[in-house]
Amino acid sequence: MSVRRAIWGDKFEAIEHSLSEVDADLYGYIRDFAYEEVLGRDGLDLKTRELLAITSLIALGSPKELATHLEGALLNGATEQEIRETIIQSALFVGFPNALGAMKMFHALLRKRSEA
Amino acid sequence: MSVRRAIWGDKFEAIEHSLSEVDADLYGYIRDFAYEEVLGRDGLDLKTRELLAITSLIALGSPKELATHLEGALLNGATEQEIRETIIQSALFVGFPNALGAMKMFHALLRKRSEA
Amino acid sequence: MSVRRAIWGDKFEAIEHSLSEVDADLYGYIRDFAYEEVLGRDGLDLKTRELLAITSLIALGSPKELATHLEGALLNGATEQEIRETIIQSALFVGFPNALGAMKMFHALLRKRSEA
Amino acid sequence: MSVRRAIWGDKFEAIEHSLSEVDADLYGYIRDFAYEEVLGRDGLDLKTRELLAITSLIALGSPKELATHLEGALLNGATEQEIRETIIQSALFVGFPNALGAMKMFHALLRKRSEA
Amino acid sequence: MSVRRAIWGDKFEAIEHSLSEVDADLYGYIRDFAYEEVLGRDGLDLKTRELLAITSLIALGSPKELATHLEGALLNGATEQEIRETIIQSALFVGFPNALGAMKMFHALLRKRSEA
Amino acid sequence: MSVRRAIWGDKFEAIEHSLSEVDADLYGYIRDFAYEEVLGRDGLDLKTRELLAITSLIALGSPKELATHLEGALLNGATEQEIRETIIQSALFVGFPNALGAMKMFHALLRKRSEA
Repeated sequence: MSVRRAIWGDKFEAIEHSLSEVDADLYGYIRDFAYEEVLGRDGLDLKTRELLAITSLIALGSPKELATHLEGALLNGATEQEIRETIIQSALFVGFPNALGAMKMFHALLRKRSEA
Repeated sequence: MSVRRAIWGDKFEAIEHSLSEVDADLYGYIRDFAYEEVLGRDGLDLKTRELLAITSLIALGSPKELATHLEGALLNGATEQEIRETIIQSALFVGFPNALGAMKMFHALLRKRSEA
Repeated sequence: MSVRRAIWGDKFEAIEHSLSEVDADLYGYIRDFAYEEVLGRDGLDLKTRELLAITSLIALGSPKELATHLEGALLNGATEQEIRETIIQSALFVGFPNALGAMKMFHALLRKRSEA
Repeated sequence: MSVRRAIWGDKFEAIEHSLSEVDADLYGYIRDFAYEEVLGRDGLDLKTRELLAITSLIALGSPKELATHLEGALLNGATEQEIRETIIQSALFVGFPNALGAMKMFHALLRKRSEA
Repeated sequence: MSVRRAIWGDKFEAIEHSLSEVDADLYGYIRDFAYEEVLGRDGLDLKTRELLAITSLIALGSPKELATHLEGALLNGATEQEIRETIIQSALFVGFPNALGAMKMFHALLRKRSEA
Repeated sequence: MSVRRAIWGDKFEAIEHSLSEVDADLYGYIRDFAYEEVLGRDGLDLKTRELLAITSLIALGSPKELATHLEGALLNGATEQEIRETIIQSALFVGFPNALGAMKMFHALLRKRSEA
């Protein structure tokens, strides 16, 4: 299974369509290099890779891509607690404001999923 | 066992002494809040926590603390390959220069350990 | 008086409720460690601490928490001019875009207060 | 012609009005120092300066000012392809998330212009 | 008295010489715009401005300029405790690693001064 | 000619050897994806790409890779003045400290070249 399918789940078609519409070349690199080549490497399972991705995105100030990888972590076996721990730990390294922003995004995601 | 002992290993006394000499209050927070309270929480094993710490520190531009957590990851069961994967993946999120800086630090650490 | 009451003013209950709903553990650290322990330390008055907080948040790209500390600065005796100077000076160190983003947020806050 | 006119084009009055309303002093520095003094220096044409501005703003996480300079680049002779290349290249240095955020903003701008 | 003299103290000639040798134009902007215009504005005393400068520089990862402003803060009436509080508070917003790096620099500066 | 040869010039063998020794996989991505694929794309000349690279690296805090691209810019037709302008302009967007750090590195490089 492709790494994108594993991370994007049933949003695969929607994300693929939206990214390729924004820019076919940049999406090509994200698809072939970022997802299928680098995130698809052996040596770390996808669950751990998604927790690492969440950590990197919190350091960047929690842009919208964070939501994708919060869901991707859940889809690949991370528990709610593991994701919460990942976010809380980030506060030590990049400060409370970025960690809090991420936790708000995760809280909103969990609420949306419980309403679905 | 304290989280600091688990991460700092046989450098425990040296790091403890050096940090407390720099500033007793700041070290107090690093010791009691950062290490023993937050990094010591349940819900994620220390090996994963150290890979996340490495990821956060790469985003910050790989300051000296990175060396501590590269060693801490090895001490808590991370393989060389897992740490390399953690560093390589970071390039996707925060760019190649910060990832390359981290890999150079890891390479220097491995060489020093193999010479010891 | 608690540091949170001094900074949050009459939004105390609303902010407390909203943060604890997002994540009780992370809010616990923000409440007990960030506000009541660190921001409550002696050696710097709360007005100066809020100007420093504003400066840190501008460097992070002016996330929503900035609004809280712009109000917190006013509540603890900072004048409009002192806050404007704090924002303007930031441009030297972290660039005009982040400073301008902060000034827009402060301008919006002042307008809202004058309409209230 | 003033540098601001060259970069802001027919939005000159609107941007000037909006910035001076936010803060006259900060706008004074942006106008006299940032635009007319530094961006108006010899030694680099405005098109190249706007591509550099886009690159700096992507590193900062693509705040709203990015839209101004994406338009400024087009107004000063940069082709769509040159701007796309500038954005794509940024992914190497500051990571894919910030580059993707910029490309989405550029895509939205191009769509708005084609509908106008 | 010029702002640079107030901040650089008896290192005025050495810093002035070294900066103008690196680049006369960039130094001209740092001298006339950054120091004498912006840091010389009314509305905040120099001591507070130096604590804000320290905070901005910690967020940037504590580059060498931090040493200049740690000394500048002391020269303009900040106590050791006030500077330590400024550094410790930064940990909340931008994380412990950058705050610790700043405290190490301050500790080295204090030791050098006590030996002089 | 490969993009790496164009940018690294007569340091090609030294850089290639040093990077591949640090990590063959990460170097493979830097070589094949970063340099030969992305920096080798049509649509922007290498001189402009190197000025953009310098801008990105200044935003990251001017790590060692900056020296490589300062030299790469000179090798691909950028004048000293164009590089100085690129560095000076960065101060507007990411602040004076990072720009000054870059200018010091460029000054040291020019002095070394004039002594060679």
